[in-house]
Amino acid sequence: MSVHSSLLDSVRIILVGTSHPGNIGGVARAMKNMGLKDLWLVAPRAQFPHPEAVFRSSGATDILENTQVTEQLEKALAGCTLVAGTSARSRHIPWPLLNPRELAGRLHEELEQPQHKVALVFGREDRGLSNDELHLCHLHVNIPTNPDFSSLNLAAAVQVLSYELRMSILEHQSQTQPVADQPFGTQWDAPLADSQALQRFFEHLETTLIDIDFHDPDNPRQLMSRLRRLYLRARPDTTEINMLRGILTSTQKVAGTKQ
Amino acid sequence: MSVHSSLLDSVRIILVGTSHPGNIGGVARAMKNMGLKDLWLVAPRAQFPHPEAVFRSSGATDILENTQVTEQLEKALAGCTLVAGTSARSRHIPWPLLNPRELAGRLHEELEQPQHKVALVFGREDRGLSNDELHLCHLHVNIPTNPDFSSLNLAAAVQVLSYELRMSILEHQSQTQPVADQPFGTQWDAPLADSQALQRFFEHLETTLIDIDFHDPDNPRQLMSRLRRLYLRARPDTTEINMLRGILTSTQKVAGTKQ
Repeated sequence: MSVHSSLLDSVRIILVGTSHPGNIGGVARAMKNMGLKDLWLVAPRAQFPHPEAVFRSSGATDILENTQVTEQLEKALAGCTLVAGTSARSRHIPWPLLNPRELAGRLHEELEQPQHKVALVFGREDRGLSNDELHLCHLHVNIPTNPDFSSLNLAAAVQVLSYELRMSILEHQSQTQPVADQPFGTQWDAPLADSQALQRFFEHLETTLIDIDFHDPDNPRQLMSRLRRLYLRARPDTTEINMLRGILTSTQKVAGTKQ
Repeated sequence: MSVHSSLLDSVRIILVGTSHPGNIGGVARAMKNMGLKDLWLVAPRAQFPHPEAVFRSSGATDILENTQVTEQLEKALAGCTLVAGTSARSRHIPWPLLNPRELAGRLHEELEQPQHKVALVFGREDRGLSNDELHLCHLHVNIPTNPDFSSLNLAAAVQVLSYELRMSILEHQSQTQPVADQPFGTQWDAPLADSQALQRFFEHLETTLIDIDFHDPDNPRQLMSRLRRLYLRARPDTTEINMLRGILTSTQKVAGTKQ
């Protein structure tokens, strides 16, 4: 069954801190089965490339050959307009949490916008993603599992989300091509801020809040997490981020911490 | 997320002619993750039980210990009221062919009848099910894959079908309170700010932006409209609004416009 392949080309799978090279191969196979191509590894624990990854990929070697490796999640997120991280259910601060089907619908909408790119981020086999890593994500996704035995194999988790995404695209294709849903239900006037621009904004925001004595990094009281959650939910565009950063710079001038 | 477990207890997974014991372990893990229990092996090629199966099951050993082994598919199908077999697309004789989602809906209907039992039959890693075996099935199911790389790992195929079945049961259960109807798809930790609270926040924001010389009310350049659009999109809760107003007050203190 052929799908609109350019949509799937804009989906990036990111594996953070993977221990077992065999799992990386299993992920590559699952991706290729579902028509995905773009794999990034953040700080893998074992050497990569690795023969066990090749073996478990069952022939998806083209994906492994084009896999990018980096030490920082932020680098792997460069250029991505929507980031979804896999998460267990309970977190200190609730974040928008979708099941795989809801996520696939959301990603499909996103991918209908040219130049948009989405990232699906998967954590370590034993501990998943850290809170800091989860706070880089717009959305969290949880695969509903047996509560008594909830830890999915990494390749299985990638398989389920990739499958849902493929199904979502196939289902939309089989209808008469609907008018593309625009983000926020309207034609937008500026491109969305990408992950790096958002990251720079949050750093600027934190510095400024320290400058005005609102934020004490030694006693953070979840402040930055809550602010991240708020702004990520709004999905700021580039104009809005420039405006917010302009406000921060003016604030710093008044505080005397910036010329 | 708990599901009506007796429904899943009535689902049997049958693996025919499996070559690799590791795959049997991976299947057991996938089944247990999704809440399934009943595994049968028909003419496995390697000895069973097998340590590689135990290793790959990652602790789903209860399923392996209760696995039944037989030489004939017909025996494994005893007592099953509906049988679905996994199949590639083209067969000499067309058969009812469903995708995994359609199948899950069909199985769910079936399972609502007491004493009904359904079987999902998976073929060999290299050749799938024979025509004779497929003709023992009421329905065939095809997982939509990349046509250039269509052979799924056995555990991945079981994962996708088990996941669909679990989703189907959860969706029927959750009609009282669908996840999507909750704000942001999850239980939120603070009530949404009401219209008056938002209005007071926007007034405070505008005053502060004047105080720091960022905003000139005589030359507004759509500034407040854009900021309203941004914050309203995020639908701030009361905690978030209090936090944002705290930042504004600190900014005003630094600007010397508030004690």
